[in-house]
Amino acid sequence: MKTVESILRALKNGEMGISEAKNAVESLPLLKLAHTRLDLGRRERTGVGEVVFGAGKTPRQINEIVSALRSKGQDVLVTRISDKAAAAVRERFPEAEISQAARTATITSKRRRLCGRVAIVTAGTSDMPVAEEARITAEFLGDKTESFYDCGVAGIHRLSAVIDKIKKARVVIVIAGMEGALASVVAGLVKSPVIAVPTSVGYGANFGGLAALLSMINSCANGVSIVNIDNGFGAAYNAHLINSVK
Amino acid sequence: MKTVESILRALKNGEMGISEAKNAVESLPLLKLAHTRLDLGRRERTGVGEVVFGAGKTPRQINEIVSALRSKGQDVLVTRISDKAAAAVRERFPEAEISQAARTATITSKRRRLCGRVAIVTAGTSDMPVAEEARITAEFLGDKTESFYDCGVAGIHRLSAVIDKIKKARVVIVIAGMEGALASVVAGLVKSPVIAVPTSVGYGANFGGLAALLSMINSCANGVSIVNIDNGFGAAYNAHLINSVK
Amino acid sequence: MKTVESILRALKNGEMGISEAKNAVESLPLLKLAHTRLDLGRRERTGVGEVVFGAGKTPRQINEIVSALRSKGQDVLVTRISDKAAAAVRERFPEAEISQAARTATITSKRRRLCGRVAIVTAGTSDMPVAEEARITAEFLGDKTESFYDCGVAGIHRLSAVIDKIKKARVVIVIAGMEGALASVVAGLVKSPVIAVPTSVGYGANFGGLAALLSMINSCANGVSIVNIDNGFGAAYNAHLINSVK
Amino acid sequence: MKTVESILRALKNGEMGISEAKNAVESLPLLKLAHTRLDLGRRERTGVGEVVFGAGKTPRQINEIVSALRSKGQDVLVTRISDKAAAAVRERFPEAEISQAARTATITSKRRRLCGRVAIVTAGTSDMPVAEEARITAEFLGDKTESFYDCGVAGIHRLSAVIDKIKKARVVIVIAGMEGALASVVAGLVKSPVIAVPTSVGYGANFGGLAALLSMINSCANGVSIVNIDNGFGAAYNAHLINSVK
Amino acid sequence: MKTVESILRALKNGEMGISEAKNAVESLPLLKLAHTRLDLGRRERTGVGEVVFGAGKTPRQINEIVSALRSKGQDVLVTRISDKAAAAVRERFPEAEISQAARTATITSKRRRLCGRVAIVTAGTSDMPVAEEARITAEFLGDKTESFYDCGVAGIHRLSAVIDKIKKARVVIVIAGMEGALASVVAGLVKSPVIAVPTSVGYGANFGGLAALLSMINSCANGVSIVNIDNGFGAAYNAHLINSVK
Amino acid sequence: MKTVESILRALKNGEMGISEAKNAVESLPLLKLAHTRLDLGRRERTGVGEVVFGAGKTPRQINEIVSALRSKGQDVLVTRISDKAAAAVRERFPEAEISQAARTATITSKRRRLCGRVAIVTAGTSDMPVAEEARITAEFLGDKTESFYDCGVAGIHRLSAVIDKIKKARVVIVIAGMEGALASVVAGLVKSPVIAVPTSVGYGANFGGLAALLSMINSCANGVSIVNIDNGFGAAYNAHLINSVK
Amino acid sequence: MKTVESILRALKNGEMGISEAKNAVESLPLLKLAHTRLDLGRRERTGVGEVVFGAGKTPRQINEIVSALRSKGQDVLVTRISDKAAAAVRERFPEAEISQAARTATITSKRRRLCGRVAIVTAGTSDMPVAEEARITAEFLGDKTESFYDCGVAGIHRLSAVIDKIKKARVVIVIAGMEGALASVVAGLVKSPVIAVPTSVGYGANFGGLAALLSMINSCANGVSIVNIDNGFGAAYNAHLINSVK
Amino acid sequence: MKTVESILRALKNGEMGISEAKNAVESLPLLKLAHTRLDLGRRERTGVGEVVFGAGKTPRQINEIVSALRSKGQDVLVTRISDKAAAAVRERFPEAEISQAARTATITSKRRRLCGRVAIVTAGTSDMPVAEEARITAEFLGDKTESFYDCGVAGIHRLSAVIDKIKKARVVIVIAGMEGALASVVAGLVKSPVIAVPTSVGYGANFGGLAALLSMINSCANGVSIVNIDNGFGAAYNAHLINSVK
Repeated sequence: MKTVESILRALKNGEMGISEAKNAVESLPLLKLAHTRLDLGRRERTGVGEVVFGAGKTPRQINEIVSALRSKGQDVLVTRISDKAAAAVRERFPEAEISQAARTATITSKRRRLCGRVAIVTAGTSDMPVAEEARITAEFLGDKTESFYDCGVAGIHRLSAVIDKIKKARVVIVIAGMEGALASVVAGLVKSPVIAVPTSVGYGANFGGLAALLSMINSCANGVSIVNIDNGFGAAYNAHLINSVK
Repeated sequence: MKTVESILRALKNGEMGISEAKNAVESLPLLKLAHTRLDLGRRERTGVGEVVFGAGKTPRQINEIVSALRSKGQDVLVTRISDKAAAAVRERFPEAEISQAARTATITSKRRRLCGRVAIVTAGTSDMPVAEEARITAEFLGDKTESFYDCGVAGIHRLSAVIDKIKKARVVIVIAGMEGALASVVAGLVKSPVIAVPTSVGYGANFGGLAALLSMINSCANGVSIVNIDNGFGAAYNAHLINSVK
Repeated sequence: MKTVESILRALKNGEMGISEAKNAVESLPLLKLAHTRLDLGRRERTGVGEVVFGAGKTPRQINEIVSALRSKGQDVLVTRISDKAAAAVRERFPEAEISQAARTATITSKRRRLCGRVAIVTAGTSDMPVAEEARITAEFLGDKTESFYDCGVAGIHRLSAVIDKIKKARVVIVIAGMEGALASVVAGLVKSPVIAVPTSVGYGANFGGLAALLSMINSCANGVSIVNIDNGFGAAYNAHLINSVK
Repeated sequence: MKTVESILRALKNGEMGISEAKNAVESLPLLKLAHTRLDLGRRERTGVGEVVFGAGKTPRQINEIVSALRSKGQDVLVTRISDKAAAAVRERFPEAEISQAARTATITSKRRRLCGRVAIVTAGTSDMPVAEEARITAEFLGDKTESFYDCGVAGIHRLSAVIDKIKKARVVIVIAGMEGALASVVAGLVKSPVIAVPTSVGYGANFGGLAALLSMINSCANGVSIVNIDNGFGAAYNAHLINSVK
Repeated sequence: MKTVESILRALKNGEMGISEAKNAVESLPLLKLAHTRLDLGRRERTGVGEVVFGAGKTPRQINEIVSALRSKGQDVLVTRISDKAAAAVRERFPEAEISQAARTATITSKRRRLCGRVAIVTAGTSDMPVAEEARITAEFLGDKTESFYDCGVAGIHRLSAVIDKIKKARVVIVIAGMEGALASVVAGLVKSPVIAVPTSVGYGANFGGLAALLSMINSCANGVSIVNIDNGFGAAYNAHLINSVK
Repeated sequence: MKTVESILRALKNGEMGISEAKNAVESLPLLKLAHTRLDLGRRERTGVGEVVFGAGKTPRQINEIVSALRSKGQDVLVTRISDKAAAAVRERFPEAEISQAARTATITSKRRRLCGRVAIVTAGTSDMPVAEEARITAEFLGDKTESFYDCGVAGIHRLSAVIDKIKKARVVIVIAGMEGALASVVAGLVKSPVIAVPTSVGYGANFGGLAALLSMINSCANGVSIVNIDNGFGAAYNAHLINSVK
Repeated sequence: MKTVESILRALKNGEMGISEAKNAVESLPLLKLAHTRLDLGRRERTGVGEVVFGAGKTPRQINEIVSALRSKGQDVLVTRISDKAAAAVRERFPEAEISQAARTATITSKRRRLCGRVAIVTAGTSDMPVAEEARITAEFLGDKTESFYDCGVAGIHRLSAVIDKIKKARVVIVIAGMEGALASVVAGLVKSPVIAVPTSVGYGANFGGLAALLSMINSCANGVSIVNIDNGFGAAYNAHLINSVK
Repeated sequence: MKTVESILRALKNGEMGISEAKNAVESLPLLKLAHTRLDLGRRERTGVGEVVFGAGKTPRQINEIVSALRSKGQDVLVTRISDKAAAAVRERFPEAEISQAARTATITSKRRRLCGRVAIVTAGTSDMPVAEEARITAEFLGDKTESFYDCGVAGIHRLSAVIDKIKKARVVIVIAGMEGALASVVAGLVKSPVIAVPTSVGYGANFGGLAALLSMINSCANGVSIVNIDNGFGAAYNAHLINSVK
């Protein structure tokens, strides 16, 4: 396929007229090379590999994608991986680290030095899978994390015991199901941006996490922004971007 | 149609046998006199008058109901009263106390000695009308109240400053809009039953109080039960019943 | 970690200055010791143990928590326990009482004398699991209960047959699915506070209990407050708090 | 425009061939004459005129429709009529009966003898406009009605006082807002079909009548069918059809 | 507690005066015996047996209820019966008729003469289970039925082919999923009352029958009332009541 | 601002090197000129002007946009124009045609020859404003229209009377509120694509057009696609695109 | 059964009088013959066979329908076919082509020449089953298709690479889950009508495709109409109708 | 009220024993002084004043709050201020800057040097009020902003023209109503964190911004987090926190 450069060169060399070159330029896939290049550039610059969303992909599809990425020397993180697909990945890539709780598979070639500091705070034990997805993603992207589990507001002393450490983080991820009140309380106590993750933990009028989502998005505390229900990956990704702000 | 009295008289007179009378009694319209009597009994016993729900009633209808109740010597509380109806009530009953904020009109003959103790805690300034409806209702029903306004979790120190006083109440009413997190935090700190009132304070994905309602009903803290959005009256009524448990 | 006491002692002993001690106190986990003590105090005072929410916890996690609590001599109630986890608990603690219907496991060292009186009223046979969760919880917390099952308003004579007994309770728990009308009818007949539990019993436009929840929260009867769909535990906990109001 | 009869006559008279007649018949507005005739037949037979849905129509449009119907000697009922349109109708047709509460205008030439018997039962005073729409519609269609207002389940003795009379009706219309429990209770006590009308009376989590609608459609009592929120007209129309079943 | 009988006896014996007895009677548990007697009366009068809602009941519970009813010589219909429960019923009562499609079990002692005429119209093949539940229920209650399946409006000629027969029914049950338009079209063509049953047939934005429910309840045609999603039993029960109007 | 052409020319002329030209090309607003050119091309080719969405724009903003477009000789259609803005437009452009019903303002320089044929079918009188918006938009875009108003399925003979004419259209727009059943019925009778427009006409459980929207999107008839509630403009725009398919 | 023709002939022959013939004509199934004839005509004219919606039909029912259609020489497409039903079809019709991904079974006698051109664009890999249903349907109906998978807006260069080819299609089907933004972006770039299919791909606040559906129906781009969630068949059917516009 | 300091001093002075002091410390309002000090510290450190949420507060309440803050020398920003309250503020503080579009009032004593860089991107003209609230808030908090209005995806070239400038921002705020697709497209093109603000711009199935909210929270692009509908203030506040991450 032609590139901007080859077209310009052809024009320069007289192999194309201006009109022909103009047409050629305009019919280029619009952002294609630029973006691919950006992507490659990002990888070279940051050492961060691709993240594969495993839900709805077959074990075979996942293994093909992972193989393709590995063949280009990239680190790979697969999220929402099924048990079956995880087994398939591990069979092919014995070095893969599988987290059953977080439903992730990670293959990395070398340990990165982690920077920044992301606090991951959860309300209850059942929010842990989402928190683990966030932690593994953040570390894959190169961010240092510290986890503070089971700090729900029903016993606010649990939060009090760790709030000073949480305050030291550059970004705070708050993960909570049920009524999701933890996000408001934490945001009222820290000065860092808070990324809130509603979880589907709960029952009845929880409606699969809708209660926590609405709660968090209506937070009376300033400094809270939210991602999708159970989206630990997304929270970590946002935290990484914030950590990377220069 | 037969009446209890006519049946009994027939039995007395031998016009009916016991079995026949029993059948006749049991097929009577069910609860009629009994209940009216109970109602009167309650008033005599507790000194509590009737509460009139003013929404959707015309000034004239309200004045007629109030007059009827007053003519039987009863104290009256009208809730959700419109400005127009309030003016009409005051014109006819100059002794009526009108609260514009709470949208109530109260007419009482004598001060009652208030007992029990109900704490009314609100998250923000805008929740005050609901809190006032609760306070006025509780006092009308005979309960002592103490109000703690503007204790939202975004600045949890505001709550901390008063939590010890709140702990002393027999019942706690928590009134909050937006994400309603205050209910969970308070319930985690006190040993009294907490009645949570979601309010319609907020905007956007608040959906008229739905966010706070779902939040409160999914509270991770034990000891929270809820009433309808903006239902300050209902919260106070429940608090009164709890206060009256013997 | 430092405690309030150790700090004060250090100040007293001259090992700290006032300013240093003040800083130390203020940086303590805020409610920590206080709350733990309160918790312990509650147990000593009331003999009530911890309640473990079993949903989303593995059999192993549950067994660990139960063991930890038992090792401190506490009584334990696990709610929403899966069949698997129940079997695991029973294997380790043969004295555990398992209720399959209520999905609970209870381990108590000695029979408590139950006080107060909580009426548990259900609309239909299918609401029984929720009612059993409420009954077992209430008794675990130390409340006397009396159950009135299958009193749905479609045949109001079933309610009439027991209403006088219900009236004698200090608190009434009404459990109903479908349209949840029973809560309004009962609340119109009794003078105790009514805690309504919508259940997910029903189909079609019931939307998993939403219909009953909306119905109950819009009750035209005074004195009704509600808890989450199927939350028998929560209703009993509230009832216990009300029973404990002094 | 041609009619089935004129075509057949033309065929009979030889003015059309079979093929031409077949085409003509098939190109007739399909149900047109039949339906018009049915309509006329119904009017002649039952003396019932047309009902005009006034919402979203201008005073002028309404007056034109009314004039057209009156010019054919028909009785007319306009529902959901605005104050302005009602004034316009009355100016033109001074004999029109306007009900402000029910938002109806009725013009009838002669009193009909009403038959059947429709009981109209409401939960509260605020449901009266819907009930009046139902009553006026039913009487316009030729049904005898009896109204039982303010029978809400919060004070079930109010219902008990009139239940025997309600039982005598051929059809029962139950009109209730808030939680709409009245429909279930009435249906559990009568043997006639119950048409339930949820009303938008209420606030907060009532969501404009949705709570009552869901409640009624999930009724645990047999024999309840429902119409749209505030649709007093529809309930009366259904009642009329049931009354007319032969 | 006193009983009606003891009170009457006391009156008879002169131990109570009329006034005292009247008070005593009125404070009795309300509807108890009376209603049970009414129920028995209904059975004797109409020959209709009890209907058991099988959902959420164990095979054993169902068999116990069926046995109890059979022991009193009653006919029994169980709806929403699971395959397991159906097998259990058939094992105990080999004469039971099981409909797998309709999920019903019927045990009747003698054929009744069916009267009235109920048309059951469905939109598509997949609505048949609901239609069968309606048909079996109607016949159990003593109503003649005629079924018109697969008349959906997408091919309106299918409806046209049978509309004349449908018009002859006293009551029409219209059963449709997806957008439920069939109810409006049929109601526009017949003079009988139409009971519409939304079904959960569909996918995507159908939301389990909500689309059809909203469609039917907003019908632009007069004479439609609705029951719950998939509630074939309810539709038939309403049809029976209408058929029974005298 | 530079254009692709000027860059290429500069390269050709030696005013830029390849690398500089490459950067310049890549930093161009990506689709800018291309799209503007397409837009101009479309206007030249089709004579169709711009459509301005008037909602949420001030009269002044609208007049500025209209002036700008008119100054380039373009025809202009403003939809959802407020009465105030319409007055402002007419004051400045006396030749503007205002439709109060459709809330549109149209300024065109010359009559276009309309092609294609779009049938616009409405269920009821109240759907007319949406239909008028569709009609005016379609004609503005160059499509011939024919309107068939008040064809709701409650009286299906009204549709039958015109169905043959509707069948002749290339595209059919069906506009209906309430339950929106008309879309399914029409789509079952015609062979053209049907664009369905749910309207907000209705009340109660109509929820502002949601009922009609869900109904239409679940249509059992093939060949229906839908646009937003009350979006007459969108339907006409789609119809125009279909008409323009070559 | 009588036909219009036979009736007319009988009239002509004097075997019927005008009145009798009129009755006979009016009692004919209304659209019956006409429509059946149209249907047959369509098949003969277009060579398109019937499409069977497989969901909710048993393998046996499906095989019976397929057999019936095949016996009349028709091509058959079954959509939403279960694995079991697909196996049953293949056993009976070994020539059937089964697509597991698209859940379709196709049996065609002869290859048709495909015309028109439908572009099928998907946002992500997981949308492929819906896309395959659309592709297979379109080709079954006789439309040429070209598929562009995995063009989601998160990496807009993927779309840019193929947009020129997409622009050449007569109709564009855009299939996207999650937030469905692809529909707006594509519609802003092409001049063909865009049929958008929201898919249920996503999780959390996606609510089974509702997010994508609302997104698409609120598209800020002109020229988008939508079909039901996951309705690949419907999109293709609409595309076919548009392709067939003459 | 006692302070930590006074208690410590008393202990030091021997006026209290350790145990008494411990009790006194633990019964202090928990976070009170600490937090107030923090707040004051933040102001001194960052020069940022308080922000007052004006909705639901009376002009008088707002003026009192503003006066109190001004008397402490603080800068003040009032958001969601009504026209009336704005007039009242301006009357009292003539130096206040009022933005009618953004509904804000700002009173600042001295110009701050703005740092960081926040890009504010909107989809359409009607999103401007929300964007202005964001811009004014960001600048009040000390952040440099650059606004890019009217970049909706329907004409993606508008975005392309400015994307390079947007890429240079440290944080990007994307504000969009209707289907909110802009957030996904921008997040796919930039490397900064994107804070998405759904707006209530739209109609019909937009449901007051719900469509945009769901769209944004389901974004297929990484790096998007969201705030409440129309919450320009919240977005700016988050952006400020991110900008302030050290």
